[in-house]
Amino acid sequence: MSPLACWRRVAIVAPHPDDEVLGCGGTIARLAKDGAQTHVVIVTTGQEPRFPRKLVETVREEARRAHAALGVTTTRYLDFPAAELDRVPSSDLNAALGRALDDVAPDTLLLPFIGDIHVDHQLVFNAALVWARPRGASAPARILAYETLSETNWWAPGLTPAFIPNVFVDIGDELEAKLSAFAGFESQLKAFPDERSLEAIRALAMARGATVYRRAAEAYAIIRQVL
Amino acid sequence: MSPLACWRRVAIVAPHPDDEVLGCGGTIARLAKDGAQTHVVIVTTGQEPRFPRKLVETVREEARRAHAALGVTTTRYLDFPAAELDRVPSSDLNAALGRALDDVAPDTLLLPFIGDIHVDHQLVFNAALVWARPRGASAPARILAYETLSETNWWAPGLTPAFIPNVFVDIGDELEAKLSAFAGFESQLKAFPDERSLEAIRALAMARGATVYRRAAEAYAIIRQVL
Amino acid sequence: MSPLACWRRVAIVAPHPDDEVLGCGGTIARLAKDGAQTHVVIVTTGQEPRFPRKLVETVREEARRAHAALGVTTTRYLDFPAAELDRVPSSDLNAALGRALDDVAPDTLLLPFIGDIHVDHQLVFNAALVWARPRGASAPARILAYETLSETNWWAPGLTPAFIPNVFVDIGDELEAKLSAFAGFESQLKAFPDERSLEAIRALAMARGATVYRRAAEAYAIIRQVL
Amino acid sequence: MSPLACWRRVAIVAPHPDDEVLGCGGTIARLAKDGAQTHVVIVTTGQEPRFPRKLVETVREEARRAHAALGVTTTRYLDFPAAELDRVPSSDLNAALGRALDDVAPDTLLLPFIGDIHVDHQLVFNAALVWARPRGASAPARILAYETLSETNWWAPGLTPAFIPNVFVDIGDELEAKLSAFAGFESQLKAFPDERSLEAIRALAMARGATVYRRAAEAYAIIRQVL
Amino acid sequence: MSPLACWRRVAIVAPHPDDEVLGCGGTIARLAKDGAQTHVVIVTTGQEPRFPRKLVETVREEARRAHAALGVTTTRYLDFPAAELDRVPSSDLNAALGRALDDVAPDTLLLPFIGDIHVDHQLVFNAALVWARPRGASAPARILAYETLSETNWWAPGLTPAFIPNVFVDIGDELEAKLSAFAGFESQLKAFPDERSLEAIRALAMARGATVYRRAAEAYAIIRQVL
Amino acid sequence: MSPLACWRRVAIVAPHPDDEVLGCGGTIARLAKDGAQTHVVIVTTGQEPRFPRKLVETVREEARRAHAALGVTTTRYLDFPAAELDRVPSSDLNAALGRALDDVAPDTLLLPFIGDIHVDHQLVFNAALVWARPRGASAPARILAYETLSETNWWAPGLTPAFIPNVFVDIGDELEAKLSAFAGFESQLKAFPDERSLEAIRALAMARGATVYRRAAEAYAIIRQVL
Repeated sequence: MSPLACWRRVAIVAPHPDDEVLGCGGTIARLAKDGAQTHVVIVTTGQEPRFPRKLVETVREEARRAHAALGVTTTRYLDFPAAELDRVPSSDLNAALGRALDDVAPDTLLLPFIGDIHVDHQLVFNAALVWARPRGASAPARILAYETLSETNWWAPGLTPAFIPNVFVDIGDELEAKLSAFAGFESQLKAFPDERSLEAIRALAMARGATVYRRAAEAYAIIRQVL
Repeated sequence: MSPLACWRRVAIVAPHPDDEVLGCGGTIARLAKDGAQTHVVIVTTGQEPRFPRKLVETVREEARRAHAALGVTTTRYLDFPAAELDRVPSSDLNAALGRALDDVAPDTLLLPFIGDIHVDHQLVFNAALVWARPRGASAPARILAYETLSETNWWAPGLTPAFIPNVFVDIGDELEAKLSAFAGFESQLKAFPDERSLEAIRALAMARGATVYRRAAEAYAIIRQVL
Repeated sequence: MSPLACWRRVAIVAPHPDDEVLGCGGTIARLAKDGAQTHVVIVTTGQEPRFPRKLVETVREEARRAHAALGVTTTRYLDFPAAELDRVPSSDLNAALGRALDDVAPDTLLLPFIGDIHVDHQLVFNAALVWARPRGASAPARILAYETLSETNWWAPGLTPAFIPNVFVDIGDELEAKLSAFAGFESQLKAFPDERSLEAIRALAMARGATVYRRAAEAYAIIRQVL
Repeated sequence: MSPLACWRRVAIVAPHPDDEVLGCGGTIARLAKDGAQTHVVIVTTGQEPRFPRKLVETVREEARRAHAALGVTTTRYLDFPAAELDRVPSSDLNAALGRALDDVAPDTLLLPFIGDIHVDHQLVFNAALVWARPRGASAPARILAYETLSETNWWAPGLTPAFIPNVFVDIGDELEAKLSAFAGFESQLKAFPDERSLEAIRALAMARGATVYRRAAEAYAIIRQVL
Repeated sequence: MSPLACWRRVAIVAPHPDDEVLGCGGTIARLAKDGAQTHVVIVTTGQEPRFPRKLVETVREEARRAHAALGVTTTRYLDFPAAELDRVPSSDLNAALGRALDDVAPDTLLLPFIGDIHVDHQLVFNAALVWARPRGASAPARILAYETLSETNWWAPGLTPAFIPNVFVDIGDELEAKLSAFAGFESQLKAFPDERSLEAIRALAMARGATVYRRAAEAYAIIRQVL
Repeated sequence: MSPLACWRRVAIVAPHPDDEVLGCGGTIARLAKDGAQTHVVIVTTGQEPRFPRKLVETVREEARRAHAALGVTTTRYLDFPAAELDRVPSSDLNAALGRALDDVAPDTLLLPFIGDIHVDHQLVFNAALVWARPRGASAPARILAYETLSETNWWAPGLTPAFIPNVFVDIGDELEAKLSAFAGFESQLKAFPDERSLEAIRALAMARGATVYRRAAEAYAIIRQVL
């Protein structure tokens, strides 16, 4: 039995398109092979003038192809303004994200990390946890936070919450698929040594893997698990 | 599929007899029902004159009955001196505990908590983690620390490691079996409001359960999980 | 001399009605018996359409009766919009809460916990601490944070501030009064295993009590004490 | 070679005028003697009616004189409303502070501490770190947070980030200059035992100094250093 | 009523003579004025050849005079070897310290800090907490850890437990008595900027005092309080 | 001026041979190029029967060659028994390590991390900090802890001290020299995905580097720096 066999309906919440690939791309590919459903919820969309419409369309098309390649079951966009979530009333964000998650009804919830430098990530984490409050037996059995290169290392670890992983998903057989999916995000790809480069993604996956004697892994910090 | 279905060979390491019941009694009972193996390793045995031989024999018999009632598969005693583990060279403790765990070859390892006030608990935690280093693919897939009433709350939480649970095992159907098993430890049972009373054990199980909308739960702090 | 003898004028700040009963109901009842003054400041009021007027009136009446039963000296409402405090400028919240606390002039200040999942709780905590800055000899001698079932366990302990209690108020003689007061909050009461049930409240009080060899206790995390 | 020899272009970001003197006044004076450049960026300005125009002008003149006395190279004001930064969109704050820091192009960045009680301090810390993300080789080599009497001790250390210094700048020869500079801030100076008194500033400098066998020191918490 | 009125029988545990003066000298003097009993337990005594007999006798005489000046009620020596507590079985240390504390039967227990760099301090802290486990109603109502210049700042705060004070005892009227008592410890007194100098002690007391608007204070980290 | 220009006499303390290469190999190579002195102190030596004499000699020869390749100035062995430091009185370890460090008189001290799983690492960290107490002006100006693959990730991060790096040394030009030096430790080298493989070392260096926009870096946690 696959150790991921309990993950049957997985919701991956991403503040911006590509966070879900950086954080969980290999896990998604493995879940797809296992026959599990993966539902991506992308909270924001770039708005003009900060983000040119052309760029936004490009990113959305890149995400579409990456999701197809990884085997994502469904993708939802909530269309809140990117980089401006601090202007959105928390009750509005909670309500919209809650409806999307009600719709997915996941047993497993994968979230951006509260210690990421981007305030959008922090707010999305909080809103998802409000939804996940165990006020009934249908709350998700597993909630984990993923790490996002170019966000997770750059707030102030030691003062702000540090990403200390305690769950490792073996992606030894899925690393190339993850890299290939991210390579398709040409608008977001940077040259090494930028964290958003293929070399950095590969190095992190190998380092996380070696921590647990695996060729590659995606690391998570667990929030809550009910067995 | 039971959410505990991945736990097939479970090692429960206890510094002293009864820690495994206080911390994991309900989980053990549930695993037994699920057909999983549970192997208890008890690290110390009371030595005279600190612990009268008579008392030691009584406790061992109480443990035997409790384990039988809960459905424990095997019980091992390493016979290090109780309350004197700080006199034992760490290499000796590591070696003996390592042999026992090699023998069990668990996929899941349940440990006392490093922040327990008893130095025996702290040292057992450390020795077990030395064994569990992921130096090969056979290291256990899951390592969790359990909480022990009369130990876990009484060091200096806030200064010493605090028990902040993130894994909850539903023992709604096993709480009575746990209480019954502990009630048989007459030599260790105290009157409420002592933490080692049936009332305190029940209250903690209900409080941990309500945290995740379950009637009763045993709580764990995860150390490492590989999926 | 009662160990609570130094608490003569106590302000209890609650984001929403019933938080003060869940967190401090037993303490309030005990202080009333001791002849101390207890002043409750409730920061928000539900606004339509999120909260129907009828419900709001019901809750206020329930609070009135609960406060009377516990012996609360005075109750103030600041009437900020519930679940929308993140839209209120912090300077407005600071000013209004500051005026109320100036008026009470407490020697002891009981606050919701900054690690509660509800952003209203977090913001009320912060605003109260701004008021309590020791810029003169009249700042309160004691500031403590209380725990609130259905809020305190449900953010992300381990990543967000964890409630690690270090002050325990014995409510062995007041637990029934607390339960009775909360039972009167019919609009807020849930069936076990919800955290807002009488069973969960009782279990937590017994578990917190047993930690310090008392039949029941309310637990607090100290912020600052001057002796 | 002076141990500060690598600090050639130093940006000191202050939420309000005088924070930079309280936190870094001695360091600035020492850098000036060493021939380094120090650029102060003051993020907010008091706005009427909260802050009378007269007072604002007085404070600005006091800052001008203090900066001249300490040898500050340049001073910039961003003129966001004081005590109201929580109403400013984070993207606006990020943009304006980013432009100022681009202009300075510092190798060393000194920031208010994220655990200060004033939300302006917290938000300025975050905005500066957004700018300082290492997305290129020109990011500052050193980022440190300074402590501010009347802010840093008064949030909820233990629950909110605690100021635990790990870098100490010897100001044994600059303490008197720092005290003299702050003495000129007559509008902000208070009588001991207020934290904003000369006696408190001197006591803290001596206590921080003795920690590392120096007559006086300013303490910092390091965020990131690249060598 | 004095805010220290609940402290009637106070045990101060010191690893080595003078720790109790550095950490609690002002508090002791104030308690003496209030009519409370203060019982000092000194755990170690220097042994030859590490500590010449002559020096040990000198220190003991210095302690005698300091205690008399401060108004200490009783002083006990347990005579374990100084700087060698790591060679003493924890069960022996627990037993001897336990007997001394049983004899004192304190309502308030003042301990060295677990994050002090000296392993003797760490071990004494642990042994005292073992004794203080709340296994009955007679456990002390208050347990606090004091800070010791030349120990508390010098382990690795941030990695090892940091001293984050949350209880402040006003010693504005007792600071001179504390300084005078420590001045009599000529064998231990160092010249400023050593932490064991009168200037450093005064600076720390003033800095701790200003944190809570007092002229001088001794700071403590609370471990547990039952009210 | 090189940002490492202040590091003139660097002591690297290693519990066992190869820790200094895993943790600081690139930094050592860079310092050598810069003309700085690097002095390695290796605390333990394997003793029979645990470690065959033949193996010990092999390892020592491997270390000799690696040090020569990296440009280490001097290497000292203290010859305490490997994996048995917990049996050594702390006063003996403190004394011997202190003498070695007195001899080196470093301005910069590089230590194993206190959160490493191996108790030898923890004890060496503590002993070095005892020596480094700032009891005079000659204490080292910088103390940093390095990370060691196969030790630093395998205790219980989150419960035991987590390695959260805040100092990054660019080893983009020295990574190949580091890998080559470790490749010569044939007795210690493992096949990927073991952490002690060349692939894991390279992946970690690239991941640490990308965090700060460098091709490769060694990461450190700062303990104390005086400027």
